Amino acid sequence: MSGNSIGKLFTVTTSGESHGPALLAIVDGCPPGLELSEADLQIDLDRRKPGTSRHTTQRREADEVKILSGVFEGKTTGCPIGLMIENTDQRSKDYSKIAESFRPGHADYTYQHKYGFRDYRGGGRSSARETAMRVAAGAIAKKYLFQEHCVLVRGYLSQLGPIKIDAFDWNEIPNNPFFCPDAGKVEEMEKYIDALRKEGESIGAKIEVIASNVPPGLGEPIFDRLDAELAYALMSINAVKGVEIGDGFECIDTKGTKFRDEITPEGFLSNHAGGILGGISSGQDIIARIALKPTSSLRLPGRSINSKGEVIEVVTEGRHDPCVGIRATPIAEAMVAIVLMDHLLRHRAQNLHVNSGLPILR
Amino acid sequence: MSGNSIGKLFTVTTSGESHGPALLAIVDGCPPGLELSEADLQIDLDRRKPGTSRHTTQRREADEVKILSGVFEGKTTGCPIGLMIENTDQRSKDYSKIAESFRPGHADYTYQHKYGFRDYRGGGRSSARETAMRVAAGAIAKKYLFQEHCVLVRGYLSQLGPIKIDAFDWNEIPNNPFFCPDAGKVEEMEKYIDALRKEGESIGAKIEVIASNVPPGLGEPIFDRLDAELAYALMSINAVKGVEIGDGFECIDTKGTKFRDEITPEGFLSNHAGGILGGISSGQDIIARIALKPTSSLRLPGRSINSKGEVIEVVTEGRHDPCVGIRATPIAEAMVAIVLMDHLLRHRAQNLHVNSGLPILR
Amino acid sequence: MSGNSIGKLFTVTTSGESHGPALLAIVDGCPPGLELSEADLQIDLDRRKPGTSRHTTQRREADEVKILSGVFEGKTTGCPIGLMIENTDQRSKDYSKIAESFRPGHADYTYQHKYGFRDYRGGGRSSARETAMRVAAGAIAKKYLFQEHCVLVRGYLSQLGPIKIDAFDWNEIPNNPFFCPDAGKVEEMEKYIDALRKEGESIGAKIEVIASNVPPGLGEPIFDRLDAELAYALMSINAVKGVEIGDGFECIDTKGTKFRDEITPEGFLSNHAGGILGGISSGQDIIARIALKPTSSLRLPGRSINSKGEVIEVVTEGRHDPCVGIRATPIAEAMVAIVLMDHLLRHRAQNLHVNSGLPILR
Amino acid sequence: MSGNSIGKLFTVTTSGESHGPALLAIVDGCPPGLELSEADLQIDLDRRKPGTSRHTTQRREADEVKILSGVFEGKTTGCPIGLMIENTDQRSKDYSKIAESFRPGHADYTYQHKYGFRDYRGGGRSSARETAMRVAAGAIAKKYLFQEHCVLVRGYLSQLGPIKIDAFDWNEIPNNPFFCPDAGKVEEMEKYIDALRKEGESIGAKIEVIASNVPPGLGEPIFDRLDAELAYALMSINAVKGVEIGDGFECIDTKGTKFRDEITPEGFLSNHAGGILGGISSGQDIIARIALKPTSSLRLPGRSINSKGEVIEVVTEGRHDPCVGIRATPIAEAMVAIVLMDHLLRHRAQNLHVNSGLPILR
Repeated sequence: MSGNSIGKLFTVTTSGESHGPALLAIVDGCPPGLELSEADLQIDLDRRKPGTSRHTTQRREADEVKILSGVFEGKTTGCPIGLMIENTDQRSKDYSKIAESFRPGHADYTYQHKYGFRDYRGGGRSSARETAMRVAAGAIAKKYLFQEHCVLVRGYLSQLGPIKIDAFDWNEIPNNPFFCPDAGKVEEMEKYIDALRKEGESIGAKIEVIASNVPPGLGEPIFDRLDAELAYALMSINAVKGVEIGDGFECIDTKGTKFRDEITPEGFLSNHAGGILGGISSGQDIIARIALKPTSSLRLPGRSINSKGEVIEVVTEGRHDPCVGIRATPIAEAMVAIVLMDHLLRHRAQNLHVNSGLPILR
Repeated sequence: MSGNSIGKLFTVTTSGESHGPALLAIVDGCPPGLELSEADLQIDLDRRKPGTSRHTTQRREADEVKILSGVFEGKTTGCPIGLMIENTDQRSKDYSKIAESFRPGHADYTYQHKYGFRDYRGGGRSSARETAMRVAAGAIAKKYLFQEHCVLVRGYLSQLGPIKIDAFDWNEIPNNPFFCPDAGKVEEMEKYIDALRKEGESIGAKIEVIASNVPPGLGEPIFDRLDAELAYALMSINAVKGVEIGDGFECIDTKGTKFRDEITPEGFLSNHAGGILGGISSGQDIIARIALKPTSSLRLPGRSINSKGEVIEVVTEGRHDPCVGIRATPIAEAMVAIVLMDHLLRHRAQNLHVNSGLPILR
Repeated sequence: MSGNSIGKLFTVTTSGESHGPALLAIVDGCPPGLELSEADLQIDLDRRKPGTSRHTTQRREADEVKILSGVFEGKTTGCPIGLMIENTDQRSKDYSKIAESFRPGHADYTYQHKYGFRDYRGGGRSSARETAMRVAAGAIAKKYLFQEHCVLVRGYLSQLGPIKIDAFDWNEIPNNPFFCPDAGKVEEMEKYIDALRKEGESIGAKIEVIASNVPPGLGEPIFDRLDAELAYALMSINAVKGVEIGDGFECIDTKGTKFRDEITPEGFLSNHAGGILGGISSGQDIIARIALKPTSSLRLPGRSINSKGEVIEVVTEGRHDPCVGIRATPIAEAMVAIVLMDHLLRHRAQNLHVNSGLPILR
Repeated sequence: MSGNSIGKLFTVTTSGESHGPALLAIVDGCPPGLELSEADLQIDLDRRKPGTSRHTTQRREADEVKILSGVFEGKTTGCPIGLMIENTDQRSKDYSKIAESFRPGHADYTYQHKYGFRDYRGGGRSSARETAMRVAAGAIAKKYLFQEHCVLVRGYLSQLGPIKIDAFDWNEIPNNPFFCPDAGKVEEMEKYIDALRKEGESIGAKIEVIASNVPPGLGEPIFDRLDAELAYALMSINAVKGVEIGDGFECIDTKGTKFRDEITPEGFLSNHAGGILGGISSGQDIIARIALKPTSSLRLPGRSINSKGEVIEVVTEGRHDPCVGIRATPIAEAMVAIVLMDHLLRHRAQNLHVNSGLPILR
């Protein structure tokens, strides 16, 4: 399959550029009978939506999704679900000047190399705008997972530049524009981002996603392991440079007796593995973490070349997120949900009659 | 496709368990005309082979690969290449006692949940034994990439438990059993591993792979990005818990002006991105890093349950690597080579006539 | 991948029901730089469009396609091409009565079995309406194939019920509503269809597609042969019950000396094989033939059961084609073009440097 | 995926040439817990095996299959099943003379065009030898389908050249070398083939496969329909030039009232559709039919060219089937079983909780 599809049985295919008429997604493989309406998708789309706080790009997009097929009388039919989001606020003039230049840290140069030709308006296909459709498709997976197995896929921002969270409360996350679970850090983050914006700078962030109540057995060794496909899905998000499962890089300097999660009839005694053993879900929480790089679209000039290979200086005006991580939480949740959904279906296909007789340990 | 295949155009499918008669691989999609012999594959297989130093499992496997198809008169024909490695040293008795028990940190419990039944001998399919075929298939990709574009895919161990390298010399790597490029650290590593072994403990490691001379343009946005598929391929290796591209998690606390790699007509001024922009190779070195967890097979007893759900104590005798990272370098190289090979072919298919007119910057 | 995608490198994914808001297609994998506008797609859409003659359903659909992405400044960018056709003339009331009944010969019964729930309006996803998007996507493939290799993909109706063609002239095809290349048979066909319609009956048809100037080498043995994928693509069209390549079923009673197409330096002496040997194109014309069954939507009552399993009598009012074969020619052309396009790209990927030194024989 | 794999969830990947060391297959996706031994595969392999009667090639192959993985303690584990058949009777000298010549009607010319280089020994990958692995893999699918749903996949020869069967008895099929269900025609067929062999000629054949007790609901519209994938799988068999489902080409001159299979609470009143409606199994017998062309390997000289493009005369010595259709029945059964198996698994994944409340009609 070409590069714009993800998932083998729950297959999400998307199209659309930052400044084209519309974004599309075809979500193929959703089981029939799931109650679904545009409102179910809109919740997460609104969480991702730009322009909702002063800390994100001021581009104003309604991000209103339309369901064009696959749902009848309020329920999925098992046929592909067609989705459309029209682009409304496209200020293409902002971008015309970069038609011939390559913004450092952006995909302009590589798209030009690959395709010899590119839609430069707002980065075209390489714009984060594309992630809106990931969120819409992910919302379908999230709803199904919750209905079927009470699986909860939830994310939060665990670090913004130098600021790490100390406290944790799921209920705090909706109360601030950062998806930060530590109320005590919000003001610090706001000040930090305000300063960055004045400076014309940007910064990175760390996001963690936790999936609870995941049934054991999901994941297809040896290549399509659950952790491998989570890494694929999360690394495919714009600006992501690293992915961790469970303790991630901390495992390097940890000894085996500490790292191996011991098991008792009452449950596991720890979860260093992040809920995945041998590529298969164990029933414990799935824990995934990503690092997002700082935006490269800056007011501060950067050295580059143009399509003639000449030296130029790039200054990005226009409306940009000083930290793409701020809006990335719903996107990361969506990717985790899409992978879990796909693996839930794959698992069913081959293991319908399996009864391990084992308890489900958390 | 089911879970035991990787790659869309250069497709590697494997089978085989730790203690079954043989491992197989079918490598489908290698272009015709590549000179190939078993010796080309054996070089990397020998680098991965167990029992070559006192620091790895003492299981003795010849790991002799046979080419059973797809090569005629010393050249690939374009038809699938069939590979077989027979298992010779299988001490199944070592494992019989774990038939009913779940080793903590292993896939025993999850395989039992998924399949309701498992080949417990040496971990069956979940054993690291399976990686031999990744190495054999990767060697084909490596050779083709080098012949076609002088692409060099090389890895090394950058950290063993607490020991980080300070110096770097590609030429030192073959001179020690750790794939360590810092001669000054080898003795320290040897002492550390000897101590671990006495202790009955294990430890994690960090491996870095660098691919040089990669042509720009490889990678298929927006899901099948080069970095996303590298993350998938690397995370699919046993014991890997984290993947980084370029600066990876360091990007979180880095500012945009520093992170964005500026461009001059003479080349890029830095490579924080690790040679990938917007999911597409830029022509710079591809830099990928993985974290490997400590082995869970330990002499020191661990708490667990058996298949009846009863409390047991697990002690793993038998022959195990105190640090799986020691032998992981050729495996990581192989996975990177397989992904690059697949994307080289995918890129050609759609961009045959593209001439961006751009210089190739490194 | 789920069932609504076709093609590995030139991948067409569609969604949409007969009476939903719109049909969508995402065409992923079209090389960059192809000049493309909606007009290029509209030509074939208009050839398939219902209501253009008294011999087809009187449903009136503009079938106006919108390109929503993947084309910039009149050229394809290499990014996925998003297409939409809005449904305008949906007389759902015509269908409400069949909500609970299963029309014999239709997919109502099997959809109900599979999904337990269905969009009954006009057959929902199983309606021939879906083929509009095949035609739109196929038009892209056709244009590329012609630009790159002067490949011409052309079809015609070779039999309508009992009426077989005697004469053949490509130029006659656009002059009648049947895609019939034999002007002498058109009046007979018109009378036959008029009589059928009065009778309330329907009839089958045979369509032949010929692709000329196909480069030799297309097709991936041993499963993804060119003929195998043509059979798949053509059999996936509604109402198709048979597929032939070259002489097809005639080969059964033909002797080997007659069937094997002998070769001379000037070219092949015959084309019984239909341009494919060992699953790979030979350079001769690709010849494919399909049989389409008679429509099952009839005014004449048919016995069936309802969703309660009770005996009912089904009478289909509404607007239906007495012969679906009449409009099937552009659909069959589209499917052949999509397969050829996909295999052209697949062939390039692996055989870039191949020079067989052989002449191209026709 | 490259061309040597078939099936999305039940995935069969094969390798091997006519005169290489061995044929391999990796069967990925078989559910765990199926009792399986080499004997289960050998039954069908022996039915296909050459040299069992004077009417087929005298090449003597034991066709002994070895299971190298995926089966433990007599049961499948859910991990990939590795299969190997060693080639024993390879008389490569028979073929050396054709190294530079292209046998008319064979794949020599197209392989040379595609790959620029070929394994000419016995046709290499394009040899019917490859079908042995289809049969071995198909036997696994057949056994699972029968165990799970009492699905019976059975085929027979319905026409040999001009000789059509009149009577039908499943029990007669194993009693003759033709898989002919009409005892009264066997002698005529034997005489016909003897005469052909003397003449140095070959002839085509027609094979029909019937699958009984297929659960309703299998098939994934709109491209991966059950009939479309059957057409793909059957057309991928060497020498197949046509595929029919149900009445196939007869539907062209049949009226709608006759063709649509009416439904009663006791069952369908006919099965013109061949058990598939809208691409989904109805529960009725699946009926598929193929046409196989006459062998092109003949003692009688044929005109061709060599790799220099010069005129040559080709005479094929060596051991060949005068009618490849004679041994094709088990191969056709295998392909149908593989497709049904794949679709059974795909259906489960998405429709686990579906209860249509409908009776299963036959």
